[in-house]
Order: sequence, then structure tokens, then C-alpha cells
Amino acid sequence: MTKETRIEADPKLPIIRMTRDFAATPEQLFRAHTDPALFAQWVGPDATATRIEHWDARTGGSWRYVSAHDGAEYGFRGCFHEIGPDRIVQTFTFEGDPDGVALETLWFEDLGDGRTRLRTQSLVDTFEGRDAWLRSGMEIGVNEGYAKLERMCTDGTL
Amino acid sequence: MTKETRIEADPKLPIIRMTRDFAATPEQLFRAHTDPALFAQWVGPDATATRIEHWDARTGGSWRYVSAHDGAEYGFRGCFHEIGPDRIVQTFTFEGDPDGVALETLWFEDLGDGRTRLRTQSLVDTFEGRDAWLRSGMEIGVNEGYAKLERMCTDGTL
Repeated sequence: MTKETRIEADPKLPIIRMTRDFAATPEQLFRAHTDPALFAQWVGPDATATRIEHWDARTGGSWRYVSAHDGAEYGFRGCFHEIGPDRIVQTFTFEGDPDGVALETLWFEDLGDGRTRLRTQSLVDTFEGRDAWLRSGMEIGVNEGYAKLERMCTDGTL
Repeated sequence: MTKETRIEADPKLPIIRMTRDFAATPEQLFRAHTDPALFAQWVGPDATATRIEHWDARTGGSWRYVSAHDGAEYGFRGCFHEIGPDRIVQTFTFEGDPDGVALETLWFEDLGDGRTRLRTQSLVDTFEGRDAWLRSGMEIGVNEGYAKLERMCTDGTL
């Protein structure tokens, strides 16, 4: 099992890729990403609380949530291009940078024995934007969030 | 006025960019891209007929249309990440290649005197996919479609 998240910048494309294995079935990981009450429990750093403002997790639907931290609120939004059992494709914008848009793809790869590899890809239109995101400390939110998700896999929440 | 569409492949990014000027206001070009009855009149090659299957042109909405040509039908679909007066951001999939997803951005740039520059950008996650699209003869559909749109700008349709 990969315990840490592998985070990689593609050398030739403005893409960030992440990989992490979970002690969950693909169906459980799918639910953790599409059920708003479950998603709000794990996404983001430990210090933030997530409030789902809009959530319509079907192909052609859309979403918005707000992360609250130390009295400040940060909005995120996008649309769901495709919701499938093995793959989710969606757009992503941080409302503090409204011109920036990422195209995100998530794959749930069955490893057998109740384990699943989550692979994600985030594509943007400049290397500068991609590298600024990598330098932003995003790995803290990613790792703390996935650690919460990992606990939900084993404590019966999923 | 640019009479032909300028179509450019970015040398460093998996992006196709297009530019074309129209004898229309930004508002007219916006309507031509968001009103389904207008959009169906101009999109695609002369030899195809477009049937809108679903169309919800608002931020967080989605769309699907079918192009019919010689008895064959080709479906296209996506979601609208952002619908603004100066910018539309949407996803795009040709259903014949369901794994392929492009993130498309359109800008309506007011040139004054009732003229508008349309700039578009289509971002995908591989250079191979981008280049296959460029080699597919897509410029025929683009140029014939925009020629129809140009006629709609001057014949009173818009």
C-alpha cells in the first residue's frame, strides 16, 4: 500500500498527477467522492471545515463548496463532465482565482482484496499556473484530506 | 477583418487556438453560441444537420447535440463550466471517442464598430490527441460553420 500520496508534475504537459491506495472498494471510493455528506467529511486540510453549497453528482451536473478556516471562507466550484463507476471527469475553479480552470480526472482502479488505487490528473493551460499550484502548499491539504478518507475506509463510515 | 479562421497548434502545450473576426457585437456572438436554435443553424460542416438533444446554457449546465450526415449520426456532449458575456468555458467530448475530453474556452473581444473577435482555445491532455484532431479535417467544419455564422451576422438572423 502507498501510505503517502504520490504527487507528480508531468515534465511535458501542464498536469499534476496523484496516486494513492486505499483500503476500500472502488464503490466505496466512488461514494466518498460523489455523496456530498461523505465528501465534506474528508476533503481539505484538517484545519478547514467544508460546507457544500450545491452538489449534483451526475453527468452534466455541477458542484460548489466553501472551505472555512480561521474565519475566512474559500469557494470552489465546477461542473461534472462525467460521473462513471470507474472514472469521474470534472472542472475545478478556486473562486479566489476565477480565471483559472482545471480539468480533473479521477480513476478508481480495483486492486482486489478490498483495495483500490485512486489516480487523479489535473490539467491546466499554463505551466506557470500548474507550478504555482504545486508551490502553494497544496500537498498539505491533499495528504491531510486523504488521511481522513483513509480513516473513513476503516472505521465503518464508508 | 480576418476572413479565414486562424487555426494554431501551441508549440509547447496540447492546445488548439482559433481566431476569427465577425461583423457582430459581442452580445450577438454570445447569443449565437448560447441560444440552441441559433447554434444549430451554424455549427459544423455544410453537409451536416445539427439536432440539439439537451441544452442548458448557464454556469453549471450541460449540453448535447447530434450531427447527422449521410444517414450517420455523431453525438457531442459536455458541461458548461462558465457562461459569461465575455467568456464561455465548457467541456467537449465526441461520443465516438468517449475517453477524450477537451476543455474549451471562448472569448468575445469587442473590436468596436459592431465587430467582435472570437478567440477559442481547446485544451486536451496529450499532444497525440491534439494532433490527431488537427489532422482529422476539422478545419472544414470550422470554416464552413463560421462562414454560416458570418452570414447570420449580416442577414439579420442574429
